[in-house]
Amino acid sequence: MREVSVIGIGQTKVGEHWDTSLRHLAWEAIQMALRDAGVRRVDGLYVGNWLAGQLSGQEHLGALIADFAGLRGVEAVKVEAAGASGGAALRQAYNAVASGLMDFVVVVGVEKMTDRIGSPVQAAVATGADSDYEAAQGITPVTLAALLMRRYMHEYGLELSDFAPFSVNAHQNASTNPNAMYRNKISLEAYIKAPMVAEPINLFDAAPAADGAAALVLCPTAIARDYNVQPVRIAASAIATDTLALHDRHDPLFLTAANLSAGQAYEQAGITAEDVDVFELHDGFTILAALSLEACGFARRGEGVRLAADGSIGLRGHIPIATFGGLKARGDPAGATGIYQVVEVVTQLRGAAGPNQVQGARWGMTQNLGGLAATAVTHILEAPSG
Amino acid sequence: MREVSVIGIGQTKVGEHWDTSLRHLAWEAIQMALRDAGVRRVDGLYVGNWLAGQLSGQEHLGALIADFAGLRGVEAVKVEAAGASGGAALRQAYNAVASGLMDFVVVVGVEKMTDRIGSPVQAAVATGADSDYEAAQGITPVTLAALLMRRYMHEYGLELSDFAPFSVNAHQNASTNPNAMYRNKISLEAYIKAPMVAEPINLFDAAPAADGAAALVLCPTAIARDYNVQPVRIAASAIATDTLALHDRHDPLFLTAANLSAGQAYEQAGITAEDVDVFELHDGFTILAALSLEACGFARRGEGVRLAADGSIGLRGHIPIATFGGLKARGDPAGATGIYQVVEVVTQLRGAAGPNQVQGARWGMTQNLGGLAATAVTHILEAPSG
Repeated sequence: MREVSVIGIGQTKVGEHWDTSLRHLAWEAIQMALRDAGVRRVDGLYVGNWLAGQLSGQEHLGALIADFAGLRGVEAVKVEAAGASGGAALRQAYNAVASGLMDFVVVVGVEKMTDRIGSPVQAAVATGADSDYEAAQGITPVTLAALLMRRYMHEYGLELSDFAPFSVNAHQNASTNPNAMYRNKISLEAYIKAPMVAEPINLFDAAPAADGAAALVLCPTAIARDYNVQPVRIAASAIATDTLALHDRHDPLFLTAANLSAGQAYEQAGITAEDVDVFELHDGFTILAALSLEACGFARRGEGVRLAADGSIGLRGHIPIATFGGLKARGDPAGATGIYQVVEVVTQLRGAAGPNQVQGARWGMTQNLGGLAATAVTHILEAPSG
Repeated sequence: MREVSVIGIGQTKVGEHWDTSLRHLAWEAIQMALRDAGVRRVDGLYVGNWLAGQLSGQEHLGALIADFAGLRGVEAVKVEAAGASGGAALRQAYNAVASGLMDFVVVVGVEKMTDRIGSPVQAAVATGADSDYEAAQGITPVTLAALLMRRYMHEYGLELSDFAPFSVNAHQNASTNPNAMYRNKISLEAYIKAPMVAEPINLFDAAPAADGAAALVLCPTAIARDYNVQPVRIAASAIATDTLALHDRHDPLFLTAANLSAGQAYEQAGITAEDVDVFELHDGFTILAALSLEACGFARRGEGVRLAADGSIGLRGHIPIATFGGLKARGDPAGATGIYQVVEVVTQLRGAAGPNQVQGARWGMTQNLGGLAATAVTHILEAPSG
C-alpha cells in the first residue's frame, strides 16, 4: 500500500447560499483545490453528500459534478453515511490512491440544506436515524440528542451551563474564520439565556443546518512534493459503525464507534491521543463534543466537559478543538462537514491558520460522525516535514 | 495490488415485497452470501442503494445494515450512482480488497421501490436525471429514453417491432429463473399489442420497478480457494461517467461512458469483446440494450438490434445477454441490479445456471448503468480454472 497525502484544499463560505446551486458550490470548492494542488486532470472523483435527493431532487452527484467541474468521463461516485458522508467519501478516495488504482483523486463534500425550511429538513435529517424504530415514532435527531444529554447530566450531576464553554470556544474561533457561518462571539450569559430547541438542548448547543462545499486533492506521498511544497500526509483512515437506534446500545453514553475508529487510527498512525495537537471533532451538539473527547481518549467518562471548562480545548490549550468554529459556528453543511474538518486541519498543519493557528501543530485528527455516532470516521494527518 | 475473487453469492427473489423491510431483504441476501462463502466475519460492508432516502425515509444504510446483518462495528458505507449504485458499490469493495486494506468484504445491493406507487416513485427515479435541466421541466427517465429510442429508429430506419426480440429473449430466460419477477414468456404478437408507456416505449420495452437484494463476498484470489472450491476472479473493474442531461451530449446515440468503461475493463482483463461468453447488460429499456451492445464493441452503430433479431443474444448465441431475464424480466430493483448481474454471471461461470446455462462460459461481463448511461460500471469475471 502506498502512502497518501493531501496536496490541495478548497472551501466555499458556509452559510445560506440561496442563489447558488448544489453543482456550483461543488465546482467552486473543487476548482480551488485543483488550483491549490496545481493539478488539472484527476483519475477519480468522490462526492460526500447526504441530503440532495430529498432536498434538491438530485441524486447521481458523481457523474453530475464530474461533468460540471470539467472532469467529464472520470470515475465518480457518491458516498453516503448521513452526517459522516464527507469523511466516508475521503476514506474511499484514500483507498483508491493507497491501492495504486489512482494517482490523483478529488474528494468533495457538498450539501445544500437551507433552500427548504421546517419539516422537510427535519424529515430529511431523520433519515440518518432508524426510520422504522425511531423516526416513525416522530422523534428527530435533535430530540434524540436531547435524551442523550439529559442522561449524561443526570449520571454525572451536571448543569446545562457546564456545556457553555464548548459553544463559547466555537464562536470565539469562528470570529476570525472568514468562511464561518456565525462570526459573532457569544458569552456565558447569552448561552444561558438562549431559547430551548429540545430541552435541555438550547440554540447554542446545536449546530446550524447550512450550505457549503469543501474539497481535497490527494496523491501518493512519494510524488506529493512535486505538486505542493507543503503536502500533508494522511497517517490514518478508519471507519467504524454502531447501531442507528440509540435504544439498541448497551451503553448510550459511550460512543463505541468513535472509540473503535479512533483506536484503529491511532494504531495506523503509530501515535496516541497524547500526541494529537489539534482535533476537529463532530460538535453537532455540545453533548457530542463531550462524548467524542471521552471516546477518543482525551478525557475520562463524564469528564469531557471539564476540558471545555478549564480551557484545554482553546487554541492554546492542550487539545484544541473547533479551531475554525466547528460545526457549531463554522456551520454544519452535513455531507460536507467531514471535508471542512480536513481542510481546516490541513490549514493548521501547514501553519497557515493565521489568528486561528495552533502553534507547532504536527499531528491533526478529524472525527466525522453520522447520526449519534452510528458511523464514525477518523483521519489522522501529519504536518509537512522541514 | 492484489487479485480479488468472488467467493459467495446471495439473492432474494425480485418482486413486490410489501411484507419485508429494506433491512430484512439486505439481511437475507447477505446471510446467503456469507453461508455460500463459509465466512462469518468480514472487514467491511459496502451497500449499493439509490432510493431508500426518498421511498423509505431511510439513509445511513451502511451502519443500519451492518448492525442488522450481525456485523455491528464493521466499516460500512452506502455508495450511490442512481441505477448503477450496485456496480459502484462493488467497485469500492474491490478497491478495498485489491489495496490490501481489507481481506473479506461483503457488498450488498438493496432497493425497495414498490411500497409506494405513481408520482413519488417517478419523482424518486427522476433524481437520476439532471434535476435542474431535465426533471424540473417535467421529463422523467422513461420519457428521456423514449426520445432516445425515437431518434435511434429515425436514424437507422427501424420499426418498433425490431426491438421485440430483446424482450422476448429476456422473458424466455426468466421463465426458468425462480428469482425472477416475471416468469411468463411473451410472443412477438404480445409485444406489438402492448400498451404504450411513453411512445415509442411500450410495456415490454421498459423494465419494472421492483424490490430485491443481492450480495457478494470478496476476498483476495490467493486465499479464495480455501473458502470456495469455485472462486470467480474479478478480472476488471471500471467506472466512467458522462453528462446527466441527454441534451448536453455531442452524440446521444453513442453511450460514451459505457464505451469508456468497457474499454478500460477489456484492457485490465487483457481480453476483447470477442472473448466475452456472457454479458449481463443494463436492459432497463430495450433501446439501452441495443446501445450497450454497440458501445461495448459487440455490434456496429445502428446494428445492436440485429443481434437480437438473429438470435445472437440467446443462451446458445454468440453473445448471450439477460441470461436470467435481465432487468426486463428478472426485474430492476435499481440499486440492487448491479449486484444481481454479478450474482448471475458468477452462477454462469460456476456452471451452476441449470436450464439457463451458457455452455463453457469462461469470461463473463456485467455493465450497470445509471441514468441514460451517465454512469457506466463494467466488471469482467473469469471462471474458476480446472
